[in-house]
Amino acid sequence: MKEHTALEEKRLEYIPKLPAILHDLRKLKTVNLKNSPGKASEISDFFPLTIGQTALTFTIDQDHEKTPLKVGVVLSGGQAAGGHNVITGLFDALKELHSKSQLFGFLNGPSGIVNNQTIELTEEILHSYRNQGGFDLIGAGRTKIETNEQFQGTLHTVKALDLDGIVIIGGDDSNTNAALLAEFFMKEGVRTRVIGVPKTIDGDLKNAYIDLSFGFDTAVKTYSGIIGNIARDSLSAKKYYFFIKLMGRSASHIALECALQTHANYTLIGEEINEEKATFQQITNRLSDVICRRAELSKHYGVILIPEGLIEFIPEFRTLIAELNEIKIDSELSKDERIQLAMRSISSESLECYKSLPRLIQEQLMLDRDPHGNVQVSKIETERLFIEAVKQELKRRKEKGEYTGSFNAQPHFCGYEGRSCLPSNFDSQYCYALGHVAALLIDANATGYMSCVKNLSRPIEEWQICGIPLTSMIHKEMRKGKLKPVIAKALVDLQGAPFQYFKEKRLQWEDEDDYRYPGPVQFFGPSEITDAVTLTLELSQNTEAILN
Amino acid sequence: MKEHTALEEKRLEYIPKLPAILHDLRKLKTVNLKNSPGKASEISDFFPLTIGQTALTFTIDQDHEKTPLKVGVVLSGGQAAGGHNVITGLFDALKELHSKSQLFGFLNGPSGIVNNQTIELTEEILHSYRNQGGFDLIGAGRTKIETNEQFQGTLHTVKALDLDGIVIIGGDDSNTNAALLAEFFMKEGVRTRVIGVPKTIDGDLKNAYIDLSFGFDTAVKTYSGIIGNIARDSLSAKKYYFFIKLMGRSASHIALECALQTHANYTLIGEEINEEKATFQQITNRLSDVICRRAELSKHYGVILIPEGLIEFIPEFRTLIAELNEIKIDSELSKDERIQLAMRSISSESLECYKSLPRLIQEQLMLDRDPHGNVQVSKIETERLFIEAVKQELKRRKEKGEYTGSFNAQPHFCGYEGRSCLPSNFDSQYCYALGHVAALLIDANATGYMSCVKNLSRPIEEWQICGIPLTSMIHKEMRKGKLKPVIAKALVDLQGAPFQYFKEKRLQWEDEDDYRYPGPVQFFGPSEITDAVTLTLELSQNTEAILN
Repeated sequence: MKEHTALEEKRLEYIPKLPAILHDLRKLKTVNLKNSPGKASEISDFFPLTIGQTALTFTIDQDHEKTPLKVGVVLSGGQAAGGHNVITGLFDALKELHSKSQLFGFLNGPSGIVNNQTIELTEEILHSYRNQGGFDLIGAGRTKIETNEQFQGTLHTVKALDLDGIVIIGGDDSNTNAALLAEFFMKEGVRTRVIGVPKTIDGDLKNAYIDLSFGFDTAVKTYSGIIGNIARDSLSAKKYYFFIKLMGRSASHIALECALQTHANYTLIGEEINEEKATFQQITNRLSDVICRRAELSKHYGVILIPEGLIEFIPEFRTLIAELNEIKIDSELSKDERIQLAMRSISSESLECYKSLPRLIQEQLMLDRDPHGNVQVSKIETERLFIEAVKQELKRRKEKGEYTGSFNAQPHFCGYEGRSCLPSNFDSQYCYALGHVAALLIDANATGYMSCVKNLSRPIEEWQICGIPLTSMIHKEMRKGKLKPVIAKALVDLQGAPFQYFKEKRLQWEDEDDYRYPGPVQFFGPSEITDAVTLTLELSQNTEAILN
Repeated sequence: MKEHTALEEKRLEYIPKLPAILHDLRKLKTVNLKNSPGKASEISDFFPLTIGQTALTFTIDQDHEKTPLKVGVVLSGGQAAGGHNVITGLFDALKELHSKSQLFGFLNGPSGIVNNQTIELTEEILHSYRNQGGFDLIGAGRTKIETNEQFQGTLHTVKALDLDGIVIIGGDDSNTNAALLAEFFMKEGVRTRVIGVPKTIDGDLKNAYIDLSFGFDTAVKTYSGIIGNIARDSLSAKKYYFFIKLMGRSASHIALECALQTHANYTLIGEEINEEKATFQQITNRLSDVICRRAELSKHYGVILIPEGLIEFIPEFRTLIAELNEIKIDSELSKDERIQLAMRSISSESLECYKSLPRLIQEQLMLDRDPHGNVQVSKIETERLFIEAVKQELKRRKEKGEYTGSFNAQPHFCGYEGRSCLPSNFDSQYCYALGHVAALLIDANATGYMSCVKNLSRPIEEWQICGIPLTSMIHKEMRKGKLKPVIAKALVDLQGAPFQYFKEKRLQWEDEDDYRYPGPVQFFGPSEITDAVTLTLELSQNTEAILN
């Protein structure tokens, strides 16, 4: 058994606070939520049984007699800080409801449901994962439950384990899958309820009922700490431009929050690029404009933030990637052969775009495909692409006498280090509450619901809880030529308070070195540090908040 | 005036503790240190006046009458966390010695001394830099004071400012420069004393009198936090090998400490490679062996640490780089032209090595040179070089049927984000004390000394202070065909306790996922977290320390 670091030890001892409503679970009674979301009839063919359910909440009543519950839990998709706390929250709530309740963990993602690979989760196992990062307790995976055979597998599993419920911790795709599974189990007449939990560092799973997906808070705080450090280094040495790519597809929530946190000199927001239909050269020109203006102020350094998903918002790249997606790549091909293959296979417009790219990016666009046969957009080093493009543009300007500065750039990627870190106090508590609500929904016999905790910018005592029908978030979309049920990713709202605040301030941040240094995530000490929520959340829920 | 984040605010309020000996500066009396280092006569031609000075320490005596001091301070070389605290420590000590003392900051490094570019540092200016990261208070620079003209410039400056002393905060080169400047001022008959302060995140400025250079503690804690996060992500998703390059030339202290902190699966130590004269292919084979053995355990993921300076310890690269250093590069040349130039200019052995490298690395070896005309070794992405080499080796093994796993690798670089961060409590206090000792040495009329604080693994009250003659650390070395005075970089001692401990444990870490997760640097909370010293220091000074 491995030993823990001193910080891990202290986090193991940490007891997440709970909203007041969750202080005595056995007293809670289900009631319908007054403002239930409307029924989306366009998807009724996919969800004939579970469509149109009413949103639920809970009120305090008298003590209720409870029966033991058997529940399975799965981690689906990429890591996000707090996953272990959803599980411990679920476990503690199930045990509070009835001491004979049992929790099973499906191993390595949804394939664990299909193949009935589980372990029973006991306090003995769980106690060394409380408030810890990662998904390593039971592992995660990206299997999508799609085929009839897979659905039959899950049916076999829930019958074999005699499950009252399954909790699926995942993003938009995984929660769509949860809705389909709920419908399927109801059709098959098994009692197993399916509850989703909103997870993704990208922050793109949100709506009127979901303030925020878990993991976003810890990821942006981790990245902002790093970006602040780099900004201060840039300002001290005064010789480098840092081009920092931030993990997160497709939305630019992470980039926007990091911009608000650090006041980086320039931040690209994919949604704005999309609205303006800005081309790659136009974006390059804008970055070069900022660099030239700063050069006139004798500043040959700075920090530029680039969201990972940006590239798909740039018109010519979207077309190029769509065309490259059509090419089958033999994994035995050499890099040269791949590039030749690409050049032979695409339209003349895309060829022009492809040829203009640095060799490294040409290679990255032709790496082996993801499991769905698509270009691995996350492997494209946009930060290096923009460095090269800006370098060329500045060279042109220098030749024309429009620029006399020096441009030295460093690429950086804020990525994997933000997904599996120790969850912030916020994510520890939020996830612990989400796990509780999932248990309550199963106990209330609800299926096809998302576990929701709202009012997150308020003190934790005031947080509210509810269950929202998954079908209310789903619409139909064309995917590979077929209409599929899909939870739309929530993009950055260009009219929303966070973006508007950013827009108001960004010109100032471009010229001045008005950097903000958030520092590393703190777990102890003054509550204005340890309990701070993200600025996105603060601004969304309280437009009168004042940011420094 | 910019506003601070909540964490910055709290750090501004933080008052670094001081060793007991520094509680009342006006009572201190200089005494000679019993075990003074010996005289290195080989450099007496460079230092006829300052050679052979005795090491100093201080004892508590009665209150002494003091006169005001005028002192200048400069930040030389790369950023390291705590630089601002050396300056505030120096300022507070000078003011305690005499309220009319003055401190001037030289702007943007040693060129500020040469050109007399200064600001007077007052409490009003300093109060927003206390315990903060970066060097942005006065900026830093890498100018070496070498020419007669530069020396005359410094003389002019110290006369114009009427300085009693200059404090040079820097690494090995900067402290050699400090020694030369002390000698020069003494020869010129000016009273200006020169004191060095040991700074470098690399940890390679240490000896019997210097436990540790400042900035190392914060940098390794920052990097270890990130590496721990990545290790946990690796263990959760179970699909990537992370090849992480760590900043730091030439020694592998940072890599060794991060290995001890995180139990990464494999860590290359440059000094060991050097001793074994291991070739690039041998290192690649070893990494591939680890990956193959883990594949047999069904583990297709892991974490590998690579020190930035490693490449210069590999025999064929050392030769190649030495040959490439001889090539003059016109900055107008294209990438292709640079590669062609390299291939035309080097020996057949080096050509073979160069040709075997991925194109990206070939380009990086032929980037514009550093100010001394050398290959910019820090720009060589060794993490990507090893990924490519291992990929090729595993392909060969796969073809021979010796390996059946899957190998997906992600490069990462821990670099600039570790230099300008908020200094850890340790670096905040250590630097604050170093600043105090520098003031005491100037007050004691000592010149050509290093400010030293010892016993750093003990409680802060017990820390000891001394001044060590810089000349005692200097020897002669050939540099570009000339014998030059040099402070040798302290390499990892392969017989020392930290490396021996690592050696004892590393086989276990290779196969097992015995990762340790240090988490982000904490400033508040339990002292076993906030006051922990590095494991290197702990093991060096207390071989009975037990590591988990």
